[in-house]
Amino acid sequence: MLEGYSGKIKDILLNYNIDIGDIIEVITEYGSYKGRLMPRYEIYEPNYLTLKLPNGYNIGIRFSENVKIRLLNKKEPEQTLKKEEIQEQKNKIIISYIATGGTIMSRIDYKTGAVKPSFHLEDLTDLIPDAISYTNIRMIELMKILSEDINSEHWKKISQTIYNEIKTGSKGIIITHGTDTMGYTAAALSFSLRNLPHPVILVGAQRSLDRPSSDAALNLYSAHHFAIKSEYSGVFVLMHGDISDEYCVVHKGTRVRKMHTSRRDAFKTINSKIVARIHRGEIQYEDVSELLKRDDSREISLMDNFENKVFLLKTFASMPAEMSDIITYLTDKGYKGILFEGTGLGHVPHSIIDAIKYATDKGVMVAISSQCLYGRINMHVYETGRLLIKSGALGCEDMLPETALVKMMWVLGNYRDLEVAKKVFLTNIAGEISERLEYME
Amino acid sequence: MLEGYSGKIKDILLNYNIDIGDIIEVITEYGSYKGRLMPRYEIYEPNYLTLKLPNGYNIGIRFSENVKIRLLNKKEPEQTLKKEEIQEQKNKIIISYIATGGTIMSRIDYKTGAVKPSFHLEDLTDLIPDAISYTNIRMIELMKILSEDINSEHWKKISQTIYNEIKTGSKGIIITHGTDTMGYTAAALSFSLRNLPHPVILVGAQRSLDRPSSDAALNLYSAHHFAIKSEYSGVFVLMHGDISDEYCVVHKGTRVRKMHTSRRDAFKTINSKIVARIHRGEIQYEDVSELLKRDDSREISLMDNFENKVFLLKTFASMPAEMSDIITYLTDKGYKGILFEGTGLGHVPHSIIDAIKYATDKGVMVAISSQCLYGRINMHVYETGRLLIKSGALGCEDMLPETALVKMMWVLGNYRDLEVAKKVFLTNIAGEISERLEYME
Repeated sequence: MLEGYSGKIKDILLNYNIDIGDIIEVITEYGSYKGRLMPRYEIYEPNYLTLKLPNGYNIGIRFSENVKIRLLNKKEPEQTLKKEEIQEQKNKIIISYIATGGTIMSRIDYKTGAVKPSFHLEDLTDLIPDAISYTNIRMIELMKILSEDINSEHWKKISQTIYNEIKTGSKGIIITHGTDTMGYTAAALSFSLRNLPHPVILVGAQRSLDRPSSDAALNLYSAHHFAIKSEYSGVFVLMHGDISDEYCVVHKGTRVRKMHTSRRDAFKTINSKIVARIHRGEIQYEDVSELLKRDDSREISLMDNFENKVFLLKTFASMPAEMSDIITYLTDKGYKGILFEGTGLGHVPHSIIDAIKYATDKGVMVAISSQCLYGRINMHVYETGRLLIKSGALGCEDMLPETALVKMMWVLGNYRDLEVAKKVFLTNIAGEISERLEYME
Repeated sequence: MLEGYSGKIKDILLNYNIDIGDIIEVITEYGSYKGRLMPRYEIYEPNYLTLKLPNGYNIGIRFSENVKIRLLNKKEPEQTLKKEEIQEQKNKIIISYIATGGTIMSRIDYKTGAVKPSFHLEDLTDLIPDAISYTNIRMIELMKILSEDINSEHWKKISQTIYNEIKTGSKGIIITHGTDTMGYTAAALSFSLRNLPHPVILVGAQRSLDRPSSDAALNLYSAHHFAIKSEYSGVFVLMHGDISDEYCVVHKGTRVRKMHTSRRDAFKTINSKIVARIHRGEIQYEDVSELLKRDDSREISLMDNFENKVFLLKTFASMPAEMSDIITYLTDKGYKGILFEGTGLGHVPHSIIDAIKYATDKGVMVAISSQCLYGRINMHVYETGRLLIKSGALGCEDMLPETALVKMMWVLGNYRDLEVAKKVFLTNIAGEISERLEYME
């Protein structure tokens, strides 16, 4: 027992007859913490103990001479319902958890130090026993994938699973997902799931669950509360709002982007406002102006086709002639769409405008977004933009490049007529385009 | 005369015998403004008049029934020294202006409404007569190019011009540049100009000079003061710090990125801190910890070769197999370097790892940066990163993708031995890589 503890900490715990799962109090010079002692998987920081607080999330406390430990309550005998025993109870709302993989389902490999998929959904929901006690949980381990490998087949599978869950009574969907491409999947579901009656929440972690600094517990806890209490439906990303474990933020699925490689508050809303903050399960709405109210009578429908022959190309300074070759190559390979991440208001080097013309002449849908990320495309201001318009390229308005890419795959997958597809591409479907303000700075 | 004015405003100006260049007072309900009446080129907002304030920058004032106009002083006869007449005066510091094009040198085309290169350097420096009165100005109109078309030949030409200027007594360089790729050029000059004794400042505008909302004047005015007064040498980008005309910000040349398509404060420092704020010519330093002090005795040297056979590829969710074909194509075409903009901590879809291995086996330098932009690459945490390391790919630490691309061109252009080039790529040369913090969140 006392998994993961060693040295002096282990001696003291043994001395007090404290075991994993017991309720203890830890008194430090900074304050005293009561909670359940958790096993440790963190091999790099042996002088820490991990405590699950009553609000459901874990903290790591550094052990030193000045830290005192007191046993409050021995662990009660196991009462957790096993998966097969769970009966959906009436009067309890049904929430579906769909696992896809990612850091939130991973732990550190003792031998290599690398993080690998390892947890099950039950390990996650065990973190928030109080939160889930008043809900019927459905658990679906759909796939175990690193999110950099996610593709449109996965988007389709997730879409169909959500559709089935909602059709069979689920009132809220929580999808655990790797953070690398969570923004792309959130955009995909925003387009594929039409007329959503309830919220669909993508949630992940920047640190794996077995690290004291993991953000998994607070993110899950907040997602669970948002799934139950949200007054609005739609596709959302829910992650930490700051680098401490204070609160979470709910983002619109088409307006969110991973903006930091490692921070817990890596996800940011771009060109819009966040939907809500969640402090300890309490929702504080910020911008819900474009959201639909939750409505159990709304009939969900699916438009889950995505065209795979769509490519994203980022332009850059001193870009060689081979970029034109690549555009021509993709065109001749039968590509249906090319999404450029250009510069500024939607520009590309003049050297590739002929190749773009070649592509659009062959019926390829070409659109220009901006590597600035913030702000709106306006191809009417400069000569380069005007030439691009003449060459048949579309401007992506204020869509994120990643959202524009996914939307291009979606319009080309669902509308056969290219002119219709272009029109839908430039129309706001799921909050991804905002109205142009006349005198916007 | 009264160029660009029409209707009621024009009548009133004529009535008071006011002409372009006169000093007038405009009294509005919000306050009264004294300044020199400027010509108008803005065709969309006919009800505005443009005033050059004593501090050198332009404001647009909306004309209405309640606005009163008063003539204070007729324009004095032309006293501006013509270019050929300018003699470098002793006891005055020499500042060199190098024009490359961009919005700051452009005005709106009356016919099409598009913005085209049109101004000369003198038009710019005329904006800040007080600032330049105590300096010897050298004006070099090096090129007139839209910045999306800038390439390494231009970087070389600008580098050599700066070198010559400093070698012949210039104590500060101001480069007017388009904003679209200003970050790339700033990175290029940061690497090509070694041992800079004085500051080199890239400055641009998000709105052309003939618009009342132009940021050109304040940016130029601030650049001029920074060129003269800065205690530090190096390559910097200087642009607006907010969306009003309050202050400018100085960024390190390797840490700056255009982060908005249209806002005047579009440029942001990423993964570092800004160098300084400039309020009305007064410098307030923020982070100069890694900068060298200005030192007239330091001997500038040039390393201005850039390898052109370097390509940037951004990975994305649901990326098709053709990405592997493109990597193979570039490799077989003799490419020397490929810079990926991957996801998260430095990941790419597993599907292209074989193609990356093919490239590195053939001697191509491959490195992974992150589309998150903020944060550091760490390819030791997840299996994908480890596989990439095994395939010979380098991690870009906390370099911006654009800076990493330019640096790859630079190391491959200046170091023949690939192993040496790789080593230099991973070494901090111009503030582009910061030390890894052990327990960084």
